Amino acid sequence: MEPKLFTPGPLTTSRSVKEAMLVDLGSREPEFTDVVAVVRDELLALAGSSTRDGHEAVIVQGSGTFAIEALLSSAIPSSGRLLVIENGVYGARMLRIAEIHGIPTASLRCPSTRTPDLAALERLLAEDDSITHVAVVHCETTSGILNPVDEIGEIVAAAGRRYLIDAMSSFGAVPLTFPSSGAAAIVSSSNKCIQGVPGFAFVLLTRELLDECEGRARTLTLDLHAQWKGLAANGQFRFTPPTHVLLAFARALEELAAEGGVSARNARYSALQARIATGMKELGFEAIVPTEHQSPILTTFREPESERYSFELFHAALKTRGCAIYPGKLEDTRAFRIGSVGDLTQEDAETLLRAVAQVCAELGIDRPQR
Amino acid sequence: MEPKLFTPGPLTTSRSVKEAMLVDLGSREPEFTDVVAVVRDELLALAGSSTRDGHEAVIVQGSGTFAIEALLSSAIPSSGRLLVIENGVYGARMLRIAEIHGIPTASLRCPSTRTPDLAALERLLAEDDSITHVAVVHCETTSGILNPVDEIGEIVAAAGRRYLIDAMSSFGAVPLTFPSSGAAAIVSSSNKCIQGVPGFAFVLLTRELLDECEGRARTLTLDLHAQWKGLAANGQFRFTPPTHVLLAFARALEELAAEGGVSARNARYSALQARIATGMKELGFEAIVPTEHQSPILTTFREPESERYSFELFHAALKTRGCAIYPGKLEDTRAFRIGSVGDLTQEDAETLLRAVAQVCAELGIDRPQR
Repeated sequence: MEPKLFTPGPLTTSRSVKEAMLVDLGSREPEFTDVVAVVRDELLALAGSSTRDGHEAVIVQGSGTFAIEALLSSAIPSSGRLLVIENGVYGARMLRIAEIHGIPTASLRCPSTRTPDLAALERLLAEDDSITHVAVVHCETTSGILNPVDEIGEIVAAAGRRYLIDAMSSFGAVPLTFPSSGAAAIVSSSNKCIQGVPGFAFVLLTRELLDECEGRARTLTLDLHAQWKGLAANGQFRFTPPTHVLLAFARALEELAAEGGVSARNARYSALQARIATGMKELGFEAIVPTEHQSPILTTFREPESERYSFELFHAALKTRGCAIYPGKLEDTRAFRIGSVGDLTQEDAETLLRAVAQVCAELGIDRPQR
Repeated sequence: MEPKLFTPGPLTTSRSVKEAMLVDLGSREPEFTDVVAVVRDELLALAGSSTRDGHEAVIVQGSGTFAIEALLSSAIPSSGRLLVIENGVYGARMLRIAEIHGIPTASLRCPSTRTPDLAALERLLAEDDSITHVAVVHCETTSGILNPVDEIGEIVAAAGRRYLIDAMSSFGAVPLTFPSSGAAAIVSSSNKCIQGVPGFAFVLLTRELLDECEGRARTLTLDLHAQWKGLAANGQFRFTPPTHVLLAFARALEELAAEGGVSARNARYSALQARIATGMKELGFEAIVPTEHQSPILTTFREPESERYSFELFHAALKTRGCAIYPGKLEDTRAFRIGSVGDLTQEDAETLLRAVAQVCAELGIDRPQR
């Protein structure tokens, strides 16, 4: 029996999502392109919009970072400037991508356990006319913090800039729509909260931003407008898509709807996160992100000072008990992370907490809070 | 029952390859990184080498074109020049990628039913000192032609240039090794002759070429050296890999070995191709590529002039009989293509030929050769 994944993804998916991959479809056959069309429409619906309402969905082969690079390198000219609100490694990564493509950047940086200073954002946008695009990570899995995307959106909209949201590990489980956020683009991937398997990512964006991408890309494969054009023309991908992964994702979207949509999934993940956080606290583990900013996705815990503790031992011992957790590091704090996403139940959370108690006893790990 | 895919890929895979995807592994867990290590080693072994012998295997998320773009944009400086031997759309695509990245290009072009003029290649390399890299497509699935990669390699080696081979649709089924070809890089993908499912591609290359890539890439996600560095450091990917697709590929490599390796697969595909070509000829369909240049991968047939014929009707009627074929177009010739790759048997070829005969009779399609 494989362990349950308490990680930020790839995550544990349902058996039926995986079984959707037991068929080989030609990537240009109508059976497949019909699935792609449904997936694109449903992704827009999850984001509170549709093509009729001026939005488009572009699927990009590869991991989430491929879609982020596709977006930044297709949408922002070298005459623009990208401001990244940065409180973790995924924000830093967007800055790095922009730099590689010769896109001028600015950064509003804050510690990974804090949400950004909105007044400072407002000032920065007022003072710096050259900023054309503002990007933020919705749930920074560096720490598990949830950034206030809708409030940020209001400020960005008031300042008349384009707003790009990396919603990789939140989309499908934390409410986020085009109307609520004013986003020009929302990016996520197949193997996160929609509970598919890894292999592609997607950019949902306004038709206006998409039009601006035309002829602006710096690559062939990550050219967002060209990718959209192929999909829009005949429903086919320019380059071979991961057909099986897309079939799994279509099934995962059905299962999200069957569960009750984003609000139901949010409720399940929130209950899992709350139980894990409470249970871990009782076991003497300190969560690092303040509760009011904690996402339902992933929780970061300070590592015990005990010399009997090492992440490798702790991780391995938990895994023999059926639970895979995730390493972590925040600025100067040694930490580990526990995800609360995927096809997990409250019983899985109890299994994890029992396993942590047993492993601490077995290894003789002292905890600071006990 | 889904149709058998007589296409250039995604292709029909075995049930057990697909069943290998019925497990969720964490991308940083040893169970997964061990699989990745084995896959990388076996790919090099298929290319007649190993890391000890100075070669490296880099897996790139996405389709085959992502790996081609990763290679060209990581390996060739703007002070270099790429000569592409071009007899189809995949050669043209390499030129396009180079142009996008500001890499100077040259082209040795010939019709898609002909192999390149080797004397002209020799002259071109002798006359143009600025050419640093030479690229060719091994099997151009535009037509199904097989280019003489080993002979080209001798000329490129004699001229002291770097040799890059797009072996997308041949690797694993047509003999090609580093020693035989003198290649600096060989590129292929998961969903071709190794009979995995789509989701990643790979670049096999000399350590020397890999070292030259350091700091030369134009992107983050397609940076070949950085991707290698991550894999070499701890066996992990920089960005989420398609875990399920990699598990399927590992199973596919086992099945390739069980079948008897590249020579046995070549024999099976060659027999399939020969039977399809002979059978189609008997049914009045003309293969376009001369037999001596025909690959065992895919055959291009001239479309009937009959006004009763349209590809859409023909394709749909064959599909109801369990066979999916592929459209095609060569310069001015209207054509369709039939693949002979994947988990197909001689019985499948007979089914296809019976289906073609029935469909021609049913639709009343006259054939030129009858």
